[in-house]
Amino acid sequence: MSLASLDQLCQKIGYEFKDTSLLTMAVTHRSFSADNNERIEFLGDSLLNMIIAEALYRRFPGIDEGDLSRIRSVLVSGKTLATIALEFDLGRYLRLGAGEKNSGGQRRASTLADVVEALIGAIYLESGFDVCRERVLAWFAPRLSALNPESSHKDAKTRLQELLQARKQPLPNYQLIETAGADHQQTFVVACSVSLLTSSVSASGSSRRKAEQAAAEQVLLALKEVE
Amino acid sequence: MSLASLDQLCQKIGYEFKDTSLLTMAVTHRSFSADNNERIEFLGDSLLNMIIAEALYRRFPGIDEGDLSRIRSVLVSGKTLATIALEFDLGRYLRLGAGEKNSGGQRRASTLADVVEALIGAIYLESGFDVCRERVLAWFAPRLSALNPESSHKDAKTRLQELLQARKQPLPNYQLIETAGADHQQTFVVACSVSLLTSSVSASGSSRRKAEQAAAEQVLLALKEVE
Repeated sequence: MSLASLDQLCQKIGYEFKDTSLLTMAVTHRSFSADNNERIEFLGDSLLNMIIAEALYRRFPGIDEGDLSRIRSVLVSGKTLATIALEFDLGRYLRLGAGEKNSGGQRRASTLADVVEALIGAIYLESGFDVCRERVLAWFAPRLSALNPESSHKDAKTRLQELLQARKQPLPNYQLIETAGADHQQTFVVACSVSLLTSSVSASGSSRRKAEQAAAEQVLLALKEVE
Repeated sequence: MSLASLDQLCQKIGYEFKDTSLLTMAVTHRSFSADNNERIEFLGDSLLNMIIAEALYRRFPGIDEGDLSRIRSVLVSGKTLATIALEFDLGRYLRLGAGEKNSGGQRRASTLADVVEALIGAIYLESGFDVCRERVLAWFAPRLSALNPESSHKDAKTRLQELLQARKQPLPNYQLIETAGADHQQTFVVACSVSLLTSSVSASGSSRRKAEQAAAEQVLLALKEVE
């Protein structure tokens, strides 16, 4: 990889590395070299969790720690991180082993998410906490400002219940209709029926609670389409 | 609670709060007041995880992120935090509701551990990252310096295997001998036999892997007694 392209990456992330070996390490997948981003990603992951925890703590003084934790888990999820990685076009700068490259590793969400965390760790090691936090908050600014304290931290079942109550409808009915699979790898299928939809909607999950949440999410989507 | 006793607590933790309302919040259990330590504990928990992650990252340059994570989970466990809380005699400063107090809440390990995390969050909010990190590292110094990079991060099965190899013995044999209990609450019983012990040693766990680790741990203990 040429230095020019690393310069390009620095522009995209808004941070110029003095020590390019740190940056190179951050974009190196374990399939490429033993000197890869796995350890620095461990550090970056903990920084990300802390920086977002503080941002939420300050932004939402009125909500409890369970909701703070729930909002954070969405913000720091692999899915969100992979989206940020796409914004930085990180796939272009990844150093992957041949096998990983051939199997599309530069588009793998988990690989991309890991690089975002590794970059956070690398910035911290080079420039300390304040600079690192400022960068992370800049990357997350649109997502943090889009958060709606009223709804974003509520789970799907709660949101569905509130929507039905607001429309003076009876509460939803959840029914476990199937469990399948061997012990500890079971799948639960739950059907959720509401008065506003003629047929019930089913969804599955690795626990009954997860299946219920997934079914509630599906019903919320279906209700949006009906509107 | 008198101000004198809060002064005493500050001495024990090695940090003097300018804003005593932060300290008071940190020692307030949810059973006592709505203005309790739960939110600040969420923040402190993430700081603790990050500060210990960095300490381990720097201290053990040669070990991988899986082992870093394993060592950290022991250091930041409720058990370790409760021990630190006892060193600070935190139970004496806790603000508990009457019911909690009567049921021995001031000795409850999880309650005490939460206060340690809340104190970390409170120090951060008042004095920033560097002061907070310095305090946490001081509290954890004896535990960090006692870590042995050679063994502390290895699981029991690995340690048993290495011990047997060093003594030129065959590898241990693990056998699942029972699974009991309803789905998702199953208990697995595994027997581990090694050439150095005449009878096999059984242990149980909530997964086959955990039962194997527990059995390996028992065998390691038994081998120490034989020596």
